[in-house]
Amino acid sequence: MTSSDTDPRLEPVLDRIDQQMDAALERLQALIRIPSISTDPAHKADCQQAAEWLAEELRGIGFEDAAPRPTPGHPMVMGTAGTGERHLLFYGHYDVQPVDPLDLWDRPPFEPEIKDGPRGKIITGRGSSDDKGQLMTFVEACRAWVAVHGSLPVKVTMFFEGEEESGSPSLIPFLEENREALTADVAMICDTDLFQGERPAITTMLRGLLGEEVTITGPNRDLHSGMFGGAVINPIRVLSKVIAGLHDDEGRITVPGFYDGVPEVPEHIAAQWAELGFREAEFLGDVGVSVPAGEQDRSALEMLWSRPTCEVNGISGGYEGAGFKTVLPSKASAKISFRLVGDQDPHAIRENFRAYVQSVLPADCSVSFAEHGASKASVMSTQNPAFELARQALSDEWPKEAAFTGTGGSIPVAGYFNTILGMDAMLIGFAREDNLIHSPNEKYDLDSFQHGVRSWARILAALSRES
Amino acid sequence: MTSSDTDPRLEPVLDRIDQQMDAALERLQALIRIPSISTDPAHKADCQQAAEWLAEELRGIGFEDAAPRPTPGHPMVMGTAGTGERHLLFYGHYDVQPVDPLDLWDRPPFEPEIKDGPRGKIITGRGSSDDKGQLMTFVEACRAWVAVHGSLPVKVTMFFEGEEESGSPSLIPFLEENREALTADVAMICDTDLFQGERPAITTMLRGLLGEEVTITGPNRDLHSGMFGGAVINPIRVLSKVIAGLHDDEGRITVPGFYDGVPEVPEHIAAQWAELGFREAEFLGDVGVSVPAGEQDRSALEMLWSRPTCEVNGISGGYEGAGFKTVLPSKASAKISFRLVGDQDPHAIRENFRAYVQSVLPADCSVSFAEHGASKASVMSTQNPAFELARQALSDEWPKEAAFTGTGGSIPVAGYFNTILGMDAMLIGFAREDNLIHSPNEKYDLDSFQHGVRSWARILAALSRES
Repeated sequence: MTSSDTDPRLEPVLDRIDQQMDAALERLQALIRIPSISTDPAHKADCQQAAEWLAEELRGIGFEDAAPRPTPGHPMVMGTAGTGERHLLFYGHYDVQPVDPLDLWDRPPFEPEIKDGPRGKIITGRGSSDDKGQLMTFVEACRAWVAVHGSLPVKVTMFFEGEEESGSPSLIPFLEENREALTADVAMICDTDLFQGERPAITTMLRGLLGEEVTITGPNRDLHSGMFGGAVINPIRVLSKVIAGLHDDEGRITVPGFYDGVPEVPEHIAAQWAELGFREAEFLGDVGVSVPAGEQDRSALEMLWSRPTCEVNGISGGYEGAGFKTVLPSKASAKISFRLVGDQDPHAIRENFRAYVQSVLPADCSVSFAEHGASKASVMSTQNPAFELARQALSDEWPKEAAFTGTGGSIPVAGYFNTILGMDAMLIGFAREDNLIHSPNEKYDLDSFQHGVRSWARILAALSRES
Repeated sequence: MTSSDTDPRLEPVLDRIDQQMDAALERLQALIRIPSISTDPAHKADCQQAAEWLAEELRGIGFEDAAPRPTPGHPMVMGTAGTGERHLLFYGHYDVQPVDPLDLWDRPPFEPEIKDGPRGKIITGRGSSDDKGQLMTFVEACRAWVAVHGSLPVKVTMFFEGEEESGSPSLIPFLEENREALTADVAMICDTDLFQGERPAITTMLRGLLGEEVTITGPNRDLHSGMFGGAVINPIRVLSKVIAGLHDDEGRITVPGFYDGVPEVPEHIAAQWAELGFREAEFLGDVGVSVPAGEQDRSALEMLWSRPTCEVNGISGGYEGAGFKTVLPSKASAKISFRLVGDQDPHAIRENFRAYVQSVLPADCSVSFAEHGASKASVMSTQNPAFELARQALSDEWPKEAAFTGTGGSIPVAGYFNTILGMDAMLIGFAREDNLIHSPNEKYDLDSFQHGVRSWARILAALSRES
């Protein structure tokens, strides 16, 4: 019998969570219905509405000061409740990714539905997993605890961002301006997956992210490719050459100095990862491929968790409609992102990337760049006893024991919490790799949601006992 | 005094043309207002309407049998009038290019306007030059001749296509099925430019065109580039590598066997081209570039008229909207065209191109291809005396003497007239390089239109005298 199973405060909270699950799902659906796409200026009012909706929910469960807090972009939501020696910060984001291609959705992305999925019931819709479904697990755990015990067992600050999917431009100044209110003993971030869909995980290594948009201009207007082709430079050709040159034949990235600060995984971590039983063939096969596509001498898990990448996220130029148009375009552009590990410096890499592009530009071409975020990788210290307490609480809730893992994704806020606020972050999430986040038909298992809420209740209990 | 200036039939026709110019321009505007974009299925009815409009105009000036003739795609317009030993075929196309990017047009593309231009008045709108403005020069010349003399001085067949801008899928079978009606002594095609905007030209060398659409598929769906990037192949990277590999560092095209059948320009033609005074720096400078971008050892005029090319006309993949989306896309595609010269075989090149793409595909990628037309280059025989008669008639109308030239564009119908109907074609047009054909703000000089109509009247006179 583990400690959390003997905590008399916990059982009635877990029971309440189970009993109130239908109401909790109705609230989640209401939040999903707000199309809070942060990258698209047309959805600015929707982001504001999502922030206001969350603040109202928080005020209803005792976070009396909860409110949208304005930024130059979309608002943050902040609110604090509870008392106690230990102070926890809960972070999630209420903004979502764009929804195109819209025609691949089985149902409009902002009309959630609860239906049968491959492993039981699911809830559908953009944000159902990333990150509305996940952040609501905090809110519902606190709601249940307050309903049963009248107040929270520790001091909790809720902090929800609205720009996570668009490079978090307001985050650093906001953290700096609200350092006192936001600095807690430890942060809890709910934006990650169960390992292989079954094992709870506390992610302790996250890749950083550097986003760049490159636009190459050749002739001063779109031209007829017959009347000018051959004699006038084609910017799509130039852009293709830029992109083709970013990787060598062994899958390594060629930007000068790119691998400065990339460490090998420590042996004890590598050994722990080896024991996780990562099913590489299944992971790749599920998305229709069979061979790890990165550096030739690395496993897929290494490529995802511990190696840096360079991916083209979008490319555009010339005529893209139905049929054919013999145009020689004036411009071509690409959105390129780098995932970073260890001590890689995103600002140095940005400079070196831009210098590389300039160095391969032929005569008569110009290039412009736009920034889309820059964050270093994060490696958490698991020395803080809260990490092991939380791991134990998660192990109590789920059929498999919880593990410390890495992730391929980038959650820059974890790094900012460390560098700006001086606190570690626990990345605990309940999503699954087939949730289709960032893709059409995004979904979240009700199992993830219910056990996620229960997990946070257990973590609240565990961390309040220890304090 | 040249022969055409002494032809008593001609002067009243030229006078009539000048007097009726306003009415002719109103008719041209009515035709431009019909948005006959052949490549876009949404405009099918508009193409039909343009064909009907033209047929009605032709019936009104004595082409009693003129009618839209159905094809599996958009209709052809055919009609015959006049008698005489000599039979001329006049060819133009009533379909137009797409209009995007729409926001770069100063005015809606299908609302033509007559206004001041850099050299006098212009008419604006998609198709004002390519090819509605040009084909109406035939119609108005015949109208004036019939109005003055009651009938045409030679037998004339009008033949207007509606699929020229979308690969002419119905053209070859239509020519084969209507061989008898369409076979004339010589064809006249009005779809080319004045040389450097001032010298009338009969184009005798045209590049062929091969269009291919390439779609590369990697993973079976769009993925999160953090959760999968590095381990899963990115089709944009693969497509970029395909495109980057199509040219070597000297600007030569690398498709195996591509240069089979590419001749050097004969010395006497090269000498004639050298005398034309091609203003290379001005040609390039006008579109914002300074260096010929093709094969390193060739002049821009050679690149345009006598060398083959490979151009990417469009590329698309991943997230292309505002902001950033960390997607690893399932697919990426490009529209690629080859301009062909001499005896290059488009079908062999298509096969070799496809084999090249297959040969560079990495594991886990597949490729699909779509055809967008394939035509050989055309080189006309100027032995037919009609060529020199027409050249003389053009020289009489314009301030500079007419020349035999090449063109970078592809007008496959000229080749089909030769191979299927056994007749040469004279490519005579009055457009100018700054007409922005295929681009926003397409326009046509009223000077081109008026002197174009008058040119055809002179050519009708010259070729009827000779017969």
